[in-house]
Amino acid sequence: MAAPETPAPALIRPALTAVVEGLPASTPFVGPEALERRMGRPLDVRLGANESLFGPSARVVDAMCAAALDIHLYGDPEAFELRAALARHHGLTLDHLVLGSGIDELLGVLVRAYLEPGQLAVMSLGGYPTFAYQVNGQGGGIETVPYRDDKNDIDGLVETARRVGAKLLYLANPDNPSGSCLPASTQLEALARLPPDCLLVLDEAYAEFAPADAIPEISADDPRVIRLRTFSKAHGLAGMRVGYAFGAPETVRPFDRIRNQFGVGRMAQAAALAALGDPGHVASVVAAVAAGREEYAALARELGFTALPSATNFVTIDVGGNACAKIVLAALLEREGVFIRMPGAAPLDRCIRVTVGRPAERAVFAAAFRRVIACL
Amino acid sequence: MAAPETPAPALIRPALTAVVEGLPASTPFVGPEALERRMGRPLDVRLGANESLFGPSARVVDAMCAAALDIHLYGDPEAFELRAALARHHGLTLDHLVLGSGIDELLGVLVRAYLEPGQLAVMSLGGYPTFAYQVNGQGGGIETVPYRDDKNDIDGLVETARRVGAKLLYLANPDNPSGSCLPASTQLEALARLPPDCLLVLDEAYAEFAPADAIPEISADDPRVIRLRTFSKAHGLAGMRVGYAFGAPETVRPFDRIRNQFGVGRMAQAAALAALGDPGHVASVVAAVAAGREEYAALARELGFTALPSATNFVTIDVGGNACAKIVLAALLEREGVFIRMPGAAPLDRCIRVTVGRPAERAVFAAAFRRVIACL
Repeated sequence: MAAPETPAPALIRPALTAVVEGLPASTPFVGPEALERRMGRPLDVRLGANESLFGPSARVVDAMCAAALDIHLYGDPEAFELRAALARHHGLTLDHLVLGSGIDELLGVLVRAYLEPGQLAVMSLGGYPTFAYQVNGQGGGIETVPYRDDKNDIDGLVETARRVGAKLLYLANPDNPSGSCLPASTQLEALARLPPDCLLVLDEAYAEFAPADAIPEISADDPRVIRLRTFSKAHGLAGMRVGYAFGAPETVRPFDRIRNQFGVGRMAQAAALAALGDPGHVASVVAAVAAGREEYAALARELGFTALPSATNFVTIDVGGNACAKIVLAALLEREGVFIRMPGAAPLDRCIRVTVGRPAERAVFAAAFRRVIACL
Repeated sequence: MAAPETPAPALIRPALTAVVEGLPASTPFVGPEALERRMGRPLDVRLGANESLFGPSARVVDAMCAAALDIHLYGDPEAFELRAALARHHGLTLDHLVLGSGIDELLGVLVRAYLEPGQLAVMSLGGYPTFAYQVNGQGGGIETVPYRDDKNDIDGLVETARRVGAKLLYLANPDNPSGSCLPASTQLEALARLPPDCLLVLDEAYAEFAPADAIPEISADDPRVIRLRTFSKAHGLAGMRVGYAFGAPETVRPFDRIRNQFGVGRMAQAAALAALGDPGHVASVVAAVAAGREEYAALARELGFTALPSATNFVTIDVGGNACAKIVLAALLEREGVFIRMPGAAPLDRCIRVTVGRPAERAVFAAAFRRVIACL
């Protein structure tokens, strides 16, 4: 009789870092494709991710098809041409600019550059979740301040930053998910009261849609501010992943010590360069979005609701309460195949958030919204 | 007389984290575009970055042009379709797979997931610099082991990992910059001797070019191994940025807690899916590269040098000494406009490293190399 086989010793996974071990295993990022898979059928319209349904410019499409032929070559890790074009566009030098794979990646890089594990960052309660995600991923802590009058409570944010000794203050202006913006003067006053050793992270993903007086003039060499922009919104390049940060060289150049050097590839650079070279397309998108916002506001009034003022490419509509907002969101998705989102925290969680689409998508949404409300 | 203006107080940059403060301000990543800017003229051929000069498949180009029309939409953050295709390709489940913006980004994610600041990683001296870059960016330390017989000294690596209590052991197989590979059996023996709580990071960027017996069969559920692959080499997608990691779900799924969720965008997913669907293109590239390696070996012999055996899309040629290698590299660049690279550390720094191009690029390189050697 053969001796019983010795069972192989169980193999144990090497330990995660304490920070990552402590993070939730599931992420809050459920894309529309995941919703489609759950429902077992495609969405009719996606108005939940604030994508530009006006699409990219024809010049961008041409540039991308041309770049596809050279896609076997790495892109310039310094992205010299694109940074030079951005420098001209903003009146900066190349040293003020760092590229990233969308603002999402840049938030990660800046958190790793400036936030020690255990240090705190301040943001609005229910603000852009990726900032908190990156802070948590670094082992930092988040202090939140509720929205006030459906806007970022800038005084409350600065006051909280001072009280807790925050290292980062995140402000989205124009804001997601409220759609609101703050006047430039208010932002400059806040900057003057920023506590020492605190960095203002100014996320301006929706800047192109905002009135001019919502975009502050801050010295490009002020070392306490990093501004973030993207090609994902007005330029219609969400699927390509190009964002950039600008600020004082002493503040943003250290990103080069840790960033993914070849992350913004040849195709991304070609697409962004072409997009920057077609300001007419951006202007036409901005004008079309403004018209669509008016249309959504009128639709909200027609149904007895209120649209919050928007400086973005989406409209946040107050439907009167959290329960109602949840029902409307679910009914639009399940009965109508219309994907929208809603803010996740009070007081904005009485609202739904709808991207401004083209007239065709707006008509689909309007008809679906009317049907859903009629059935309540 | 007006009172003299009070000078504005100097604004001080918020402090970097201690880790980032301690990193070098300059990076070792000088792309060929930077060389062109320095020289003030374009390169004739770029054979320094191991790009696939055979280009992407025609199906990939078509898929990319089609995807350009939808580039205003974010990609599926779960990359369901692409991961499903990769799962079929490798005989895995979706849970074994994580995508990233190239292996470079995945190295960063895995280091942040598994290496506490102060912990150590082991790699070959002069191995792939991005691994060390990511370890340093996390505040970890690197222990190096010199190449032995122009191959990774796997016994030395394992022994060092045991001695220093390393958390990560990085092995590129096939290897860059030596071009060598280790038999699967040797890798499996090393895995059996891996110290407890150490993760084997197996970088297989060049796997498609290797003989079958160099790619080990490791249980997909072995929690101690993460394997890394890329679409940048044989598939010709270096400019697009798509890589993937696979391993036991318990080992790789935690990447989802910190990875850039939308980082592999719509275009990248479309391109990779099309590339995976054209194995004939990869096979033709691999065959053409094998022929080119022979040609480079014959060229080296003709000039009195030795080509190291290569399981990759480049050939490392021993030119007899570090001084000679440096002279050849500089002369090729400055006199001939031919961009190649060379290993950075002894004993391999007596070599140059040349990507296998198409026959045309190989002919340019051969003529230039002959001229440079004739002038020595």
